[in-house]
Amino acid sequence: MIELRSDTFTLPTPDMLKAMAAAPLGDDVYGEDPTVRELEELAATTLGKQAACLTPSGTMANLTAIMAHAPRGAKVLVGDESDIHIYEAGGASVLGGVVYEPIRTAPDGTLALDDLARGFPDDPDDPQFALPALICLENTHNRAGGKVLPLDYLAEVRRFADERGVAVHLDGARVFNAAVASGVPVARIAEHADSVQFCLSKGLGAPIGSIVAGSAELITAVRRLRKLLGGGMRQAGVIAAAGILAITTAHRLAEDHANARRLAEGLADVDGVQVDPAQVQTNIVMFRVDGFSWRSFVAAAAAEGLAVGELGHGRIRAVTHSGVTEADVDRAVTVVRDVVKRGPRG
Amino acid sequence: MIELRSDTFTLPTPDMLKAMAAAPLGDDVYGEDPTVRELEELAATTLGKQAACLTPSGTMANLTAIMAHAPRGAKVLVGDESDIHIYEAGGASVLGGVVYEPIRTAPDGTLALDDLARGFPDDPDDPQFALPALICLENTHNRAGGKVLPLDYLAEVRRFADERGVAVHLDGARVFNAAVASGVPVARIAEHADSVQFCLSKGLGAPIGSIVAGSAELITAVRRLRKLLGGGMRQAGVIAAAGILAITTAHRLAEDHANARRLAEGLADVDGVQVDPAQVQTNIVMFRVDGFSWRSFVAAAAAEGLAVGELGHGRIRAVTHSGVTEADVDRAVTVVRDVVKRGPRG
Amino acid sequence: MIELRSDTFTLPTPDMLKAMAAAPLGDDVYGEDPTVRELEELAATTLGKQAACLTPSGTMANLTAIMAHAPRGAKVLVGDESDIHIYEAGGASVLGGVVYEPIRTAPDGTLALDDLARGFPDDPDDPQFALPALICLENTHNRAGGKVLPLDYLAEVRRFADERGVAVHLDGARVFNAAVASGVPVARIAEHADSVQFCLSKGLGAPIGSIVAGSAELITAVRRLRKLLGGGMRQAGVIAAAGILAITTAHRLAEDHANARRLAEGLADVDGVQVDPAQVQTNIVMFRVDGFSWRSFVAAAAAEGLAVGELGHGRIRAVTHSGVTEADVDRAVTVVRDVVKRGPRG
Amino acid sequence: MIELRSDTFTLPTPDMLKAMAAAPLGDDVYGEDPTVRELEELAATTLGKQAACLTPSGTMANLTAIMAHAPRGAKVLVGDESDIHIYEAGGASVLGGVVYEPIRTAPDGTLALDDLARGFPDDPDDPQFALPALICLENTHNRAGGKVLPLDYLAEVRRFADERGVAVHLDGARVFNAAVASGVPVARIAEHADSVQFCLSKGLGAPIGSIVAGSAELITAVRRLRKLLGGGMRQAGVIAAAGILAITTAHRLAEDHANARRLAEGLADVDGVQVDPAQVQTNIVMFRVDGFSWRSFVAAAAAEGLAVGELGHGRIRAVTHSGVTEADVDRAVTVVRDVVKRGPRG
Repeated sequence: MIELRSDTFTLPTPDMLKAMAAAPLGDDVYGEDPTVRELEELAATTLGKQAACLTPSGTMANLTAIMAHAPRGAKVLVGDESDIHIYEAGGASVLGGVVYEPIRTAPDGTLALDDLARGFPDDPDDPQFALPALICLENTHNRAGGKVLPLDYLAEVRRFADERGVAVHLDGARVFNAAVASGVPVARIAEHADSVQFCLSKGLGAPIGSIVAGSAELITAVRRLRKLLGGGMRQAGVIAAAGILAITTAHRLAEDHANARRLAEGLADVDGVQVDPAQVQTNIVMFRVDGFSWRSFVAAAAAEGLAVGELGHGRIRAVTHSGVTEADVDRAVTVVRDVVKRGPRG
Repeated sequence: MIELRSDTFTLPTPDMLKAMAAAPLGDDVYGEDPTVRELEELAATTLGKQAACLTPSGTMANLTAIMAHAPRGAKVLVGDESDIHIYEAGGASVLGGVVYEPIRTAPDGTLALDDLARGFPDDPDDPQFALPALICLENTHNRAGGKVLPLDYLAEVRRFADERGVAVHLDGARVFNAAVASGVPVARIAEHADSVQFCLSKGLGAPIGSIVAGSAELITAVRRLRKLLGGGMRQAGVIAAAGILAITTAHRLAEDHANARRLAEGLADVDGVQVDPAQVQTNIVMFRVDGFSWRSFVAAAAAEGLAVGELGHGRIRAVTHSGVTEADVDRAVTVVRDVVKRGPRG
Repeated sequence: MIELRSDTFTLPTPDMLKAMAAAPLGDDVYGEDPTVRELEELAATTLGKQAACLTPSGTMANLTAIMAHAPRGAKVLVGDESDIHIYEAGGASVLGGVVYEPIRTAPDGTLALDDLARGFPDDPDDPQFALPALICLENTHNRAGGKVLPLDYLAEVRRFADERGVAVHLDGARVFNAAVASGVPVARIAEHADSVQFCLSKGLGAPIGSIVAGSAELITAVRRLRKLLGGGMRQAGVIAAAGILAITTAHRLAEDHANARRLAEGLADVDGVQVDPAQVQTNIVMFRVDGFSWRSFVAAAAAEGLAVGELGHGRIRAVTHSGVTEADVDRAVTVVRDVVKRGPRG
Repeated sequence: MIELRSDTFTLPTPDMLKAMAAAPLGDDVYGEDPTVRELEELAATTLGKQAACLTPSGTMANLTAIMAHAPRGAKVLVGDESDIHIYEAGGASVLGGVVYEPIRTAPDGTLALDDLARGFPDDPDDPQFALPALICLENTHNRAGGKVLPLDYLAEVRRFADERGVAVHLDGARVFNAAVASGVPVARIAEHADSVQFCLSKGLGAPIGSIVAGSAELITAVRRLRKLLGGGMRQAGVIAAAGILAITTAHRLAEDHANARRLAEGLADVDGVQVDPAQVQTNIVMFRVDGFSWRSFVAAAAAEGLAVGELGHGRIRAVTHSGVTEADVDRAVTVVRDVVKRGPRG
């Protein structure tokens, strides 16, 4: 099976498994796991932040960051196509007394400043209105097809947020993809946000874990919230050891990006596949297939050994990662060609 | 001062004040206020529901109904231009562990079924998604300029909700305006919703109070939530007495509607005022004035004895009510003409 | 029926009804009701606080104050016999993300400082522990039989709270009873708390409403929360007018206290009634009747025209108020004597 | 350093590390990790429940179970000395709109049925009262010094809960210690509860993870909540592999119990140490040292290579586990003797 449903399917490398078995361990709930500390320091340094905190998932990383920024009763501006809004079960809105205000997302993953501005009430003293405390961005943007938010745009949102007195959180589940694709250090991206979360377990290949990075004060609040939510893990060094390698080998994401472009170009050659290779900036390819519903296509491809999924508005998403070779990509194109040829009735 | 900012400015009539002073009273927290009981029975009967509950405000009426329908973690589909979404400080999202999903509102105040359908996840078993429990409609629709939702549309939403297994709540703060404008009993409108709230204190003229009506079981839950929120009031008969008169004299809203049309037609004759009298269905007139920001116009009009306000997207809203006579309307038009003539620099 | 179940059964006086009908009104949600403003200023001045806010109930007054003091995740120390803990449906714990920690209540209504101290974790940096933000006291203390908290005790809790950096909220539903019984201005009591709530609708006799008083900043937060909870009322002047009279005639509570003592002394003369007149400090009398369960006694007394209730641990509570005369008290004693004589089997 | 602060300090065995490196993996958020499935099936079978769910911590295991049982607004009866009440930062009270009612805990870790009964209001229809939905027990009971709850007691609580229509959740963080100490299969204990959580990462020795077990329906709800809280982990098989060994080697806890008794007996021989070996039922020893505060003793012992901690009311807790040998125990006694001899001034 060629697994293109998500880069969350990456398996730990032999080096990671070795590191996991050899890692010095302690009880991280007591703050005594040296490998976790090493990972958190590495993550903070890499992102150019004062501190970082390991969590079991990107969902919890986002949730703790949002709750740390936004008090009960505050409004959080999130993209209407963002993972935070769509795939995290309500998050801080259910658990933290926070109101999510979904903002229209442009095809490139950005939220227009004018739309963000409309999220602020004319009269902040009027108790009818929940007051914004936080803007959340996503980079790369998943449902925008892995788009990289431009650095200029991030700087603009930073200025906008500063003028308004609100914080910026970056859901950077795939922010290393953004950095590698842009050829800049990830800290150049992170500098525009008060907090950044990224996943060790997506393209970076670690089995478990995500990181929140930010100021020392914020991360102290994140740690309190992590405990409250049940995200404190004991000998977490076993997963942190893989996380350290995930960060230090992040440059390998360039291969995934090359494979994604190759896939998109291959698919563009198949009659009946709608795909625009020029839109592929990182490791995600979005496409549609004429004559197929997404369900019928996903099923037909799966029957031929190609796993893909749907990601919003009936689009098929294919994601490259460390478990996908150039040869896999070429076979994937062949499978799609065959499926299309046979047509929706098989 | 001609008060057109809102029909919430209505003052109790002499009859109401007399009834308030004469009402038999008891402790309603013990369920022993006979005037409250009479009001709640009258409200239930009038709306064609099994039971009704008095609350201190429309905000609490909506909040208790939403929380009664939607358990912790559920999603509530609300119009993006609805009062629930915009003017109620986050409500059940802050207090009740509920996620609001704003749905695009058409100019006539309706939410398209297709847009509602997109609020339901493809796979309800996938824990990534919050599951919808409730659809909220607003009738008349405030920010749509007092529009009446068509009965056919309400019936369609009812069927849609039944198919999906979710409830329908009607924010009918001004549902009596809708009934009077449509020439149907209010129960004809209410029959399409599982719960309806309406305000005794807007066009109906009572000083305080709103009602939630629904099934006996729902209203039992509403009463529990009212206590939790602090909405239980002791000798509430003093305000219920006015509420009874508010309901039995609701037919007088026809005057407000006639005055609103007269106002719109008068304004349409003023050069530089953008208003469409054909859009005026009830007691709300929306307009813009060339050359003026809403702030400068509101200030200039106030200086001339005319109080109006803004209601979304920079539009000026004027609302007729029992405190506004035909003569007031004509004077209001004159004030607007004068202000426009003098221009934004005054 | 002699109504001794609660002082919440007080009916507005003819003066109050007259004031309600004559009060200048406005829309208090816009902050424009002059009678509400007058009441809030009078209440603030009377309690020696910067500001005050009218709410529809004591439950909401407590709830807004608690939420204004205690952020999400904080712990609130409340008496285990307090009304906040027992009779307010979970309040801020359900709605506000706050943890209530019940502290043992002494028979005189006080919470021992040692017990309060145990509510503070040894290591506030340890994320296992919710951190206290607020101590709630109740004065007079309902389930302690209307006991007045000594001023010295209030001063000690104040110092304790200041040392610990937490706030003090006084549930003073009956704080005017405490002031009258102690012969001190109510501000002498209120000065030890950051916020005080009191009920206009209990012994003070107004039909509806409670007040939160505190610093200007706190009351701004209380107003936001009141809107969120749905406690904003439109022409609230109709009830505020009665509230003004309630405050200015508070001295009449001395009669209720005299009646309560008379009742206790009368009951003490009845064989089989356990009551200690020395414990009666204000308008509440607690007693038990040999051979009767509270249910059987309450039913038997009701059949003879005497309404009393249970208030914790099977004790019968009788409360005097403006609707109870000295003659009523004497008749009540007679009823109890008759009921006891006939015995539980009637 | 002899590490007796907690059994959470256990390090994975070489077998566990080997299993972790060799485990077949998948994306458990998609439900496709075969090792996680194997662990969850093993856990369910071992506890005699229909289903089980892996979470990153005992805190989350308790939290998801409590929220699955208790809807918004419900009351949860928890021991006042329970870990859920004291060490989990407020949990469902902060996040889930639930009220915790702490019930007095007997020295043997039980909650008296009479005290539980008082948590149920006389009149469940009275909206003043939050209604109980759940009783939480803890077995073994940490702050009671590792006491095992008697099976008869569990059966009584079960009957009580059934009569009242509420659920029972067992915080069985150390339930395998209870089973081994009692010589019964853990399912015999679990059968009295609707849900049980246990920690793979305490005495059982796995580095990370806890399990909730219960009915299939409950575990479906737990999985939804786990996602909401951010507890879904990707290739969680790496930790599940250790968890499988943790369960299958649980019988080794008998050694820890023998060591704990040996420790208690050794300490009982030291003049100035207050300890009762007869109270030691599992792997926890509680003691006090004359002349020392807990802080001074903990510091003095640490300086001599013995790590112990405080666990409530100034008591010192020592916990035996797989990283502590009989020789360690004997050395620990020697250290205590030396410290005591030198006295608090060192």
